Amino acid sequence: MSGRLTIVGLGPGNPEQTTPEVTRAIAGASDFYGYAPYLDRLSLRPGQIRHASDNREELDRSAAALNRACEGGDVCVVSGGDPGVFAMAAAICEAVENGPDAWRQVEITVLPGITAMLAVAARIGAPLGHDFCAISLSDNLKPWELIEKRLAAAAEAGFVMAFYNPISRARPWQLGKAFDCLRTVLPVDTVVVFGRAAGRPDERIEITDLAAADPAKADMATCIIVGSPETRSISRPGLPPLVYTPRFAKEASR
Amino acid sequence: MSGRLTIVGLGPGNPEQTTPEVTRAIAGASDFYGYAPYLDRLSLRPGQIRHASDNREELDRSAAALNRACEGGDVCVVSGGDPGVFAMAAAICEAVENGPDAWRQVEITVLPGITAMLAVAARIGAPLGHDFCAISLSDNLKPWELIEKRLAAAAEAGFVMAFYNPISRARPWQLGKAFDCLRTVLPVDTVVVFGRAAGRPDERIEITDLAAADPAKADMATCIIVGSPETRSISRPGLPPLVYTPRFAKEASR
Repeated sequence: MSGRLTIVGLGPGNPEQTTPEVTRAIAGASDFYGYAPYLDRLSLRPGQIRHASDNREELDRSAAALNRACEGGDVCVVSGGDPGVFAMAAAICEAVENGPDAWRQVEITVLPGITAMLAVAARIGAPLGHDFCAISLSDNLKPWELIEKRLAAAAEAGFVMAFYNPISRARPWQLGKAFDCLRTVLPVDTVVVFGRAAGRPDERIEITDLAAADPAKADMATCIIVGSPETRSISRPGLPPLVYTPRFAKEASR
Repeated sequence: MSGRLTIVGLGPGNPEQTTPEVTRAIAGASDFYGYAPYLDRLSLRPGQIRHASDNREELDRSAAALNRACEGGDVCVVSGGDPGVFAMAAAICEAVENGPDAWRQVEITVLPGITAMLAVAARIGAPLGHDFCAISLSDNLKPWELIEKRLAAAAEAGFVMAFYNPISRARPWQLGKAFDCLRTVLPVDTVVVFGRAAGRPDERIEITDLAAADPAKADMATCIIVGSPETRSISRPGLPPLVYTPRFAKEASR
């Protein structure tokens, strides 16, 4: 007997940014697996079972969720943001690939959500208005040298960048090193945005530049957007500036 | 007198993927500006005014919307997907920067949406599970040489890529040229996904590889995802394959 497993993205935190299809999937599920702070955002009914786990336990969590689905559970795996962006969808796929045959028979559905960079970008204008990339700064899962290579490639090619997992207690220096790396390629007045809890009451968005970008202003839940040399900030009387990357780009190389 | 201007993203087409904050903003607005097919997706009440315009008229549309807001209108500018990703938010910012002072006093709000690459990715697994980039293949707004430079940089650095605006009647050869360019850098068995109308009744998702990728399978509304060399496809008995990019990457260079 095999149940179903739905991997949902709650969006960045404001319940008004959770899609109706995700809300409906949550209402219909029996068992919920996820990092505790994401499960805390759900309003479960009696009988709906919460299986909270710690950060960095994605594979154990995936195994537990897949086993429960194989037992016939209607399982919901919960991510913040979008489940496909540095989140649980890849962990579930990895578990399926390397796990018992029974897991390949589970009906798996992924329901997208608003990922952090889109929510942060929306709060300040349109910094992702042209070509951009998303990079996880965590060197738990890839060598730091690869991260530096990607930062340099993206900066040299003129991509706007969004950083996920920028810093944590166990990874205190990586964000500073990333800024140092970018300062060798990009103009020091390149726009940098620190965005935390976009759309939530405790939202904190700060616009600065590469020269002044201070890693201490970020935590695990911060999404950082580094502009391209084309990214602009427009001042407005009595209103916050609008940060945007123009839709057109004039030159093939700077 | 100055009204408000809200730039909303409807998501890729399934109304269940439109966020509640966007639905509420639409209910409260007086005037709607956008590309006709996006406005067709709204259910407007009597008294709500529709100002449809053609594709590629983004700046004229922005000017009209900002003028209406300055007259006191509660204006809604409508994008498909996310308004910040190759869509109207950057066009409005550009208009504000280059327009009359009055436009800088309009209260502008951007409400994010599910962008096409997230919706397509969700339908097949987690191809965007590690570092990735989004590239518009339209050379209306940037030189083709810059697009090729970005394709090569992204492929060499191991980013998964999502292509927006891959092809149109006026731009028939660009997608084929992009695949040719990537074939010189990436393995020919790199996963390629053509995703159209994700989550809608007329959805069409095709998984192929770089050797077989046929530009004729794409149209204006197709989002194409090109994997990295790490992207994998897992076969499942009786179910479609799961395509995903692992959370870990082993090497700094291939």
